[in-house]
Amino acid sequence: MTQQRSTDPRHAPVTVIGLGPMGLALAETLRERGHPLTVWNRTPANADGVVAQGARRSATVADAVSASPVTIVCLKDYASLYTVFDTAGDALKGRVLVNLCSGTPNEARAAADWAHERGAAYLDGAIMVPPPLVGHPGSVFLYSGPEDVLEAHRATLASLGDPRHLGSDPALAVLYNTALLTMMYATMNGFLHATALVGSAGVPATAFADLALNWFMPSVVDSTLIAQAPSLDRGDYPGDLGTMEMNLSALEHITRASAEQGVHTDQPRLMQEIAERAIAAGHGGDNYLAVFEIFKKATRTP
Amino acid sequence: MTQQRSTDPRHAPVTVIGLGPMGLALAETLRERGHPLTVWNRTPANADGVVAQGARRSATVADAVSASPVTIVCLKDYASLYTVFDTAGDALKGRVLVNLCSGTPNEARAAADWAHERGAAYLDGAIMVPPPLVGHPGSVFLYSGPEDVLEAHRATLASLGDPRHLGSDPALAVLYNTALLTMMYATMNGFLHATALVGSAGVPATAFADLALNWFMPSVVDSTLIAQAPSLDRGDYPGDLGTMEMNLSALEHITRASAEQGVHTDQPRLMQEIAERAIAAGHGGDNYLAVFEIFKKATRTP
Repeated sequence: MTQQRSTDPRHAPVTVIGLGPMGLALAETLRERGHPLTVWNRTPANADGVVAQGARRSATVADAVSASPVTIVCLKDYASLYTVFDTAGDALKGRVLVNLCSGTPNEARAAADWAHERGAAYLDGAIMVPPPLVGHPGSVFLYSGPEDVLEAHRATLASLGDPRHLGSDPALAVLYNTALLTMMYATMNGFLHATALVGSAGVPATAFADLALNWFMPSVVDSTLIAQAPSLDRGDYPGDLGTMEMNLSALEHITRASAEQGVHTDQPRLMQEIAERAIAAGHGGDNYLAVFEIFKKATRTP
Repeated sequence: MTQQRSTDPRHAPVTVIGLGPMGLALAETLRERGHPLTVWNRTPANADGVVAQGARRSATVADAVSASPVTIVCLKDYASLYTVFDTAGDALKGRVLVNLCSGTPNEARAAADWAHERGAAYLDGAIMVPPPLVGHPGSVFLYSGPEDVLEAHRATLASLGDPRHLGSDPALAVLYNTALLTMMYATMNGFLHATALVGSAGVPATAFADLALNWFMPSVVDSTLIAQAPSLDRGDYPGDLGTMEMNLSALEHITRASAEQGVHTDQPRLMQEIAERAIAAGHGGDNYLAVFEIFKKATRTP
């Protein structure tokens, strides 16, 4: 297969730097969607498969970046970004750099400054699916940085997944990604602790999952949180339907039941402590969501 | 309004012991649905409203229990159950006791034994809605204990909410309730920590809730957990799509981002520790759900 140049933005040339499992999924998807593709990887052999499919392998990062208006970077971390581009001279000038590595908000802001100093437009992004789902319907990519840059290259980015622009602050993609992940891990841990609790009495995970995930989560938890989001923004937590004191009592039951059943207790114990901190901060008569005031503050190391 | 005796099981007589906010909601709902109702409360004045609507107030627990085939108990805890029934003599003999207080699995099993010694059939239950939603469509009550007892009185219990029978072990209602609550609190805390994280960059809770709860939770988290439940039962956690080591790296990012943004860090730090324990136990190459093995074991106090 030979590369074809096209003026159709759905087939704009693109460069991918970094061919780990995720970078390869990005490269293969772009290639399949008809984008003339240039790749670079520290270990050149990682590119063999996608080169066999028609991608061009660059010997240097500078050459790879110069081949396309948009370069998508998928490296281990922000430090790797600087190392890899150290030899790229001013190849970035006038190009668009889309950085998809994971890190912290400050790292994303520093990378945006670094790119701007080199004359590049910078988008920071987060991939919300595992490698096999890149390019599949329903896959979401989060982006932050200048909206006009995203719009100018939307067709290229849309080949990978639904691109969602979060705002001009380059840290927002990392921050949303981190926030969604902390919610994911907390929810998974909640489900796993719950499954361990009922499992201690012989209930299979499949039986519990049906009740917990098909009924309880959507109808009791998610819908309540959606309805209550405005009260979080107002910082207003009326205790009419139940107070923090009542919730603390439920949390104490959870810790005691977990101990009785011989399963993990650290997680319910921390939830109990967080409710206790909220009560100590004067929220004993408020509803449970007043623990938001605790989550908004830096934890004081005891 | 006078009490009418009827042979229609939808209007069977019922007794409610304990008229706090939840007990009152139960009593008022049963009265509205046409059940001849007898009530008892330590502080008799709590019954004034429902007595004005036609309920009969008993002077003693024994008298209250003798008035109906089924007595629903809604007290603060299991200890209160024993205190309140201390003076009831053998009034429970041949009756059905439905106990809806919160506690631990062992407390539920002990209460079942106590009731059996007094000749009563015993159902333990958990109310999955706040008082204003008792009797509303979609409200769920969980029950455990002998299924034939539940079936014989299903019409009475269905007046309060959809009765779901979990099994004959009387501890199951408390255990499921505890499990669903630990999942609820963990998920709420995950959402609140996430909202605090994006809020530190000025994102309103309402904006984040839309992405997090309308898209991310149902399509990414809940559906994944439902699909993976059989692998929890098998104890099989293949790391094809991502390993525990990769997840630990994401959890470290969450803790660092939380510290950078000046929000709560204890919760992500505990999640990180749990993943580290899973790796120490040999699950570094497994997928994240292998932390289930940590949740199934009692926490070793450090």
